[in-house]
Amino acid sequence: MNSLEISVRRTLSPKALPSSETLGFGKYFTDHMFLASYSTKKGWYDARITPYEPLPLDPGAAVLHYGQALFEGMKAFRHEDGKCVLFRPEFNWQRMCEGAERLCMVAPPKELFIEGIKALIKVDEAWVPKEKGCSLYIRPTLIGTEGFLGVRPSDEYIFFTILSPVSSYFGGGAKPVKIWVEQDYTRACPGGLGSTKAAANYAGSLKAATEAKKKNYAQVLWLDIQREYVEEVGTMNVFFVFDNEIVTPSLEGTILGGGIRNSVIELLKSMNKPVVERKVKLQEIRDGAASGRLKEVFGTGTAAVISPVGELAAKDWNIVINNNEVGPVSKKLYDELTGIQSGQLPDSKNWLLKI
Amino acid sequence: MNSLEISVRRTLSPKALPSSETLGFGKYFTDHMFLASYSTKKGWYDARITPYEPLPLDPGAAVLHYGQALFEGMKAFRHEDGKCVLFRPEFNWQRMCEGAERLCMVAPPKELFIEGIKALIKVDEAWVPKEKGCSLYIRPTLIGTEGFLGVRPSDEYIFFTILSPVSSYFGGGAKPVKIWVEQDYTRACPGGLGSTKAAANYAGSLKAATEAKKKNYAQVLWLDIQREYVEEVGTMNVFFVFDNEIVTPSLEGTILGGGIRNSVIELLKSMNKPVVERKVKLQEIRDGAASGRLKEVFGTGTAAVISPVGELAAKDWNIVINNNEVGPVSKKLYDELTGIQSGQLPDSKNWLLKI
Repeated sequence: MNSLEISVRRTLSPKALPSSETLGFGKYFTDHMFLASYSTKKGWYDARITPYEPLPLDPGAAVLHYGQALFEGMKAFRHEDGKCVLFRPEFNWQRMCEGAERLCMVAPPKELFIEGIKALIKVDEAWVPKEKGCSLYIRPTLIGTEGFLGVRPSDEYIFFTILSPVSSYFGGGAKPVKIWVEQDYTRACPGGLGSTKAAANYAGSLKAATEAKKKNYAQVLWLDIQREYVEEVGTMNVFFVFDNEIVTPSLEGTILGGGIRNSVIELLKSMNKPVVERKVKLQEIRDGAASGRLKEVFGTGTAAVISPVGELAAKDWNIVINNNEVGPVSKKLYDELTGIQSGQLPDSKNWLLKI
Repeated sequence: MNSLEISVRRTLSPKALPSSETLGFGKYFTDHMFLASYSTKKGWYDARITPYEPLPLDPGAAVLHYGQALFEGMKAFRHEDGKCVLFRPEFNWQRMCEGAERLCMVAPPKELFIEGIKALIKVDEAWVPKEKGCSLYIRPTLIGTEGFLGVRPSDEYIFFTILSPVSSYFGGGAKPVKIWVEQDYTRACPGGLGSTKAAANYAGSLKAATEAKKKNYAQVLWLDIQREYVEEVGTMNVFFVFDNEIVTPSLEGTILGGGIRNSVIELLKSMNKPVVERKVKLQEIRDGAASGRLKEVFGTGTAAVISPVGELAAKDWNIVINNNEVGPVSKKLYDELTGIQSGQLPDSKNWLLKI
């Protein structure tokens, strides 16, 4: 594509906007979606906004057989002046590019990614919630669409973006979550796909998450393949607040580097807090809980922003963190991040992009 | 579904049958496909044969975001009397059930799986090749189709089957293949999806396979996470013929248990050959090549049946096997298996199902 021309075909049957109380997460989709197609011969072509409608896929499409699927999670926020902003879209584009390289896919160029999303949100702007704590969740997705059966990378792709208005995961009365320490199933291993937001990573995670939910835990904490080091919480990265440092597992190929993780590290550095990325042993967490050195645990992610963890439990032990209450570091980071996102605090890091 | 009623909607524009010389693998699809739908509320419903046509999928479908996709590979053969047979379809159904359990999916019942495939092949029977070494490749596929964004198992599935006439991988003049021993990327790890035919496993494998192809190797040999033991060859299981035993890696959760692997073990046992399933060290292979103890290496898979390996190579070593020629064990197994499949030899194991 030489210049980014986006055709628009509007829905003939717009849906009613859901009320903010019923939003939850990922249940409602807006009226439209953005798509662009790629083939080895043509490059990227046919950037278009259409009604939210079924995608016609060849039954032999690579995404259905060989898992060529990558996605991103982003948010748009409505400020008090009514205008809408994106939070760090370049971070998500960059991560999609890195994932595409690993999965032998072709990522959309930056302009296509960002301008496509902006154009889509302009069309569905009425869907960006006004209520505090609510936002528009954005799901950019890249799939291999060529129909064939020999195992090889697809020569055709569709990049599409869908939108879902969502409510706060972490309201005033939100309780810290209980997390199950997973010791049977593995999310990722060295040489695998763990650092990418590949659909494949989630396929393997569903069983552990489902079993944890049955035991009344919100999510699982994934460990490394030797079950010695802490990795991530499936849909969130994880931070541990010790007496003298705030620690998060370093990115060594098996952990997804989250946008909120990255933002939290930047914010903590700006606050002159002792934040460190390093390998974190599960035993260190347990020892810290026993000695009182462990003050807080929290998850970071686009959906939840900051999610305090009140309990970590495994087959034969459990620890309660900060008396199962929201701690001061979690609270401060949540206020700071949501303050910047909502426009209540200055955008000192230049993270917001006006739509 | 109380009884299996399959509706049939025939194509209005049947395609020309490709000539057997041009078949290759997975390039041509037949005129029709079989589908059945599932929802938690309705169970399995709407078993149907339709023209081969695009599947309309919700853009939020679980298969596109969370990788809920499983497939199978099977073959149908045409016998000299013109009648068609399936090779071990129950094996594939059973494996799909096991994979579905691991991926929190709902597998089709056995009757739906087998009768659906039989009915589809009856409709497209003209597409089953007559030529020696050719067959009809069958791709049963299960995907999560519910549209939502919270990470959880889908409540809706589609089971579909598509068909592709294919030629022999291993004709009279076929040369043994060269295989790259992969030491950087990992296919599967304990606690993961390695024993299932999940699309997710293939997503992670494309990069290693692509890099190997650039170096002129047909496929990669995957090792375990510590790079000590041999696992499989991506689209094939692997066997090693030593002086006094025929060895294949045992199934310990990270290896896909192939139908041809299983059939080869049964055939070798019937021949009173010393076949053993156990862990196989890469060093043992290298030592065997050096000492002359290693006589043959071959892969087994539905597509290739038996594929002799003429060379194994890694970054800093390579070994040539059996002077890069087809060995007697590979030849015997190929003749035996294709003899049974084609009806030239008696079906003493009761592996064939008439369509």
